[in-house]
Amino acid sequence: MTHAADHGPLLDALRQALGEAAVRCPTAAEPLLAHLQDWRQRYRGQAIAVVFPSCTDDIARAVQLCADHGIGIVPQGGNTSLVGGSVPDDSGNQIVLSLQRMNRVLGIDPLNLSMTVEAGCLLASVQAAADAHGLLFPLSLASEGSCTIGGVLATNAGGTQVLRYGMARDLCLGLEVVTAQGEVWRNLKGLRKDNSGYDLRDLVIGSEGTLGIVTTASLKLFPKPRSRVASLLRCPSAGAAVRLLQLARVSLDAELTGLEAMHTCPVALTQRHLPALAAVAAPLMAGHVLDTSRPHDRASTEDMADEAWLVLLDAASPRDETALSDTVSSLLSQAQAKGLIEGALVSHSEAQYRAMWALREAIPMAEKLEGLMVKHDVGVPSSRIPDFLRATVPALQAAFPGCRVVCFGHLGDGNLHFNVQAPPGLDPMAFMAAHEDAVNAITYAQVQAFGGTIAAEHGIGRLKREALGSHQSPVATQWMRALKNALDPQHTLNPRRLVP
Amino acid sequence: MTHAADHGPLLDALRQALGEAAVRCPTAAEPLLAHLQDWRQRYRGQAIAVVFPSCTDDIARAVQLCADHGIGIVPQGGNTSLVGGSVPDDSGNQIVLSLQRMNRVLGIDPLNLSMTVEAGCLLASVQAAADAHGLLFPLSLASEGSCTIGGVLATNAGGTQVLRYGMARDLCLGLEVVTAQGEVWRNLKGLRKDNSGYDLRDLVIGSEGTLGIVTTASLKLFPKPRSRVASLLRCPSAGAAVRLLQLARVSLDAELTGLEAMHTCPVALTQRHLPALAAVAAPLMAGHVLDTSRPHDRASTEDMADEAWLVLLDAASPRDETALSDTVSSLLSQAQAKGLIEGALVSHSEAQYRAMWALREAIPMAEKLEGLMVKHDVGVPSSRIPDFLRATVPALQAAFPGCRVVCFGHLGDGNLHFNVQAPPGLDPMAFMAAHEDAVNAITYAQVQAFGGTIAAEHGIGRLKREALGSHQSPVATQWMRALKNALDPQHTLNPRRLVP
Repeated sequence: MTHAADHGPLLDALRQALGEAAVRCPTAAEPLLAHLQDWRQRYRGQAIAVVFPSCTDDIARAVQLCADHGIGIVPQGGNTSLVGGSVPDDSGNQIVLSLQRMNRVLGIDPLNLSMTVEAGCLLASVQAAADAHGLLFPLSLASEGSCTIGGVLATNAGGTQVLRYGMARDLCLGLEVVTAQGEVWRNLKGLRKDNSGYDLRDLVIGSEGTLGIVTTASLKLFPKPRSRVASLLRCPSAGAAVRLLQLARVSLDAELTGLEAMHTCPVALTQRHLPALAAVAAPLMAGHVLDTSRPHDRASTEDMADEAWLVLLDAASPRDETALSDTVSSLLSQAQAKGLIEGALVSHSEAQYRAMWALREAIPMAEKLEGLMVKHDVGVPSSRIPDFLRATVPALQAAFPGCRVVCFGHLGDGNLHFNVQAPPGLDPMAFMAAHEDAVNAITYAQVQAFGGTIAAEHGIGRLKREALGSHQSPVATQWMRALKNALDPQHTLNPRRLVP
Repeated sequence: MTHAADHGPLLDALRQALGEAAVRCPTAAEPLLAHLQDWRQRYRGQAIAVVFPSCTDDIARAVQLCADHGIGIVPQGGNTSLVGGSVPDDSGNQIVLSLQRMNRVLGIDPLNLSMTVEAGCLLASVQAAADAHGLLFPLSLASEGSCTIGGVLATNAGGTQVLRYGMARDLCLGLEVVTAQGEVWRNLKGLRKDNSGYDLRDLVIGSEGTLGIVTTASLKLFPKPRSRVASLLRCPSAGAAVRLLQLARVSLDAELTGLEAMHTCPVALTQRHLPALAAVAAPLMAGHVLDTSRPHDRASTEDMADEAWLVLLDAASPRDETALSDTVSSLLSQAQAKGLIEGALVSHSEAQYRAMWALREAIPMAEKLEGLMVKHDVGVPSSRIPDFLRATVPALQAAFPGCRVVCFGHLGDGNLHFNVQAPPGLDPMAFMAAHEDAVNAITYAQVQAFGGTIAAEHGIGRLKREALGSHQSPVATQWMRALKNALDPQHTLNPRRLVP
């Protein structure tokens, strides 16, 4: 009620410009929680209203009105941010602008291998629209059924196909963007090459809604591979996995589409909590079965870098499956001869292929069932992963004896999900409340020492804004602030997010 | 002498900071023309001095000193800009900062497939250093023996391998940059994934030295393909060439590394002026031999889109040459069955492979020997190339009866070098002086109508700065100006270039 009273003129103007139905205020009967709370339930904010525009011009009008009234706007797609980037703060002085009604596929140009979609399209719908034309939009990640392409671009999302096809940035040909002044910059030409001026597109991509609101995008499409083969491998160490990556790149080149690594610990956790999904790994997990009588089994030793890792190697090809399988087999023979793998399963059916990926994708859920962890999304050069593990795990265990590191991720991109579980006997929630900052500090210090990033794919949002300020070069912070102030001097767009 | 007098304090300070030998003033005895005049000899400027720093800190000092004295800096690599981006203006109030002494390869990390190089490294040296480690730095263009990697990145250069490996932007992992304030932003981590803040790297790439000076770069490397096969094909029309592109993408996927198209006219000009280099095309040019008794043969008709085009299709693979040749042959059979090609030569040796590329690379020289032309570096979506030709060539011929369009380029990227030759009997120099603006206006209007760009790969520099202001969205111009003013408020770096 207070909000409605304070913000009546803005709400009236928004309703007049966008229509009654497009402006909804949270009430006891309709709290609109899905728009105010993040997916991991770490942040819950307040909003004057959630606005649902149906076209770019309506977004431009909404931005102008909010700017006129000094009100911040939080752009929101599927609200799947893992860093608190897509929910309002507690000030009660912000509008959530949901793109969910702007969900049309505007066109596909098969000869140009491009498509134009509105920002509110679900990622899965984008994939499906490409597929219906016999083409591939390769970006794939766990939340693809609920995240939107606008959010994917605003956060430069990664996923499981980065090794071959790149991040969201690499898959975008152009954008339509509403600026902080409510103007529309439209560049949806679908060009592969365009050296006419500053790279405004890539400045907006990854800016997490702080420089402009992505309303429409032109995307790259690819031919659909004719065949794909997954292999689930056991490597004797993280170093062997890194050398396997190099070997696979040489043998398969662009036919290598993904290379995921999982320390045995997260696989064992999946065996414990989601045994059906972990069954595929059984032949490779000898000697690594989790001892359920002890919360932390031997997989939590300091020697993680030199213990066994499972690797999921994904290959896709325009050749037929026999030809691709032959190439993969030849690679695995070489890897075995070099001592890089000590066990291998190769998919021979779509069901086996899916089962291998299902194991990899089950890990976050197995972690959730195991209990709260301090999560990190770090990146270091692939070549430095083993030494990073050798330095960081003992540092954490020295500070928090008995804590367990659960580590897996996109080895091919140097991107590790490096998650820390409370020592046995401690309440995970209490551990996190007391020690999250210290766990982060130890981890981030090592990331920095190894030339890495504290935010490889999930972004900065609200969660890592301060940490970014501490860990990046002061010159980068100056530039970021200068850019924000240049393009959004009133800080209308996603205020107090991303920019340290 | 006047300069020395006016700018004595700055020159003294530069000499003290960088050493006597690093600061050279143009004199009658040593006019330093190679640093003051562009490669195409369209622009010749003046400079207080040409400065040759040997390290990043010296660049930072030089920038600080110039900023303190209100003097503009023109960063210069190999000075191969085609748009006047790397030479000073006539004001006599600028310093040229040559990166040529900073030419070291600082390191190669084969396991991370990355290398770190100073900005003044020749592109050919970068390629050679990668090759010495059995790896590939794929960016390749005509000036690779004289252009530097810093210039390649500052202009986001393209070249002949874009279809598979992307532009310079796509091949860069990180940069070290000196800002307009003489500070150093260092981000050379060699990471594939890094979502920590705005994409400052891509903002600098393609900014043509106007936002920061690239001093060092971390580059992506690739495994060297085991085999490569080129095919020189005759397509009955530009539309057939576009459909061939699509078919090749499906058949070859990432093994398709390049697809260049040449209307018969530039091939015929090469036959006339460089017959040895054009000999390879003879079997495909029946009926298209240039009639040397008439300056403009039938290749200059309005029907260019529906006449024969030669296509150079390049494929590379980690498989052996027999396997790759089989795939290419199968593609060509399909293409022939669909009527997309009416003649084909496939390379069966390195010599044949090189001969096909030598033809393509000879075209600019053949053009030069034929005479001055009004050149364009335009891009449209590949699917729209035929209609773009159908609209633009007649428009030019209506305005300038008898003029000839010489067209070739990177069809796979939608990037055409679309060059206009004076009608027979007119002096090319006089035609250019009188009509260049009108030729540009007609061409650019059609480019815009077809959703294209007036600067696909050569950039904006000085040549197209006004045209960019006329052809891009006013919002983009506002953003560019805001970014320039935010990061270089004194306009110290490459003043009056790129930003409209």
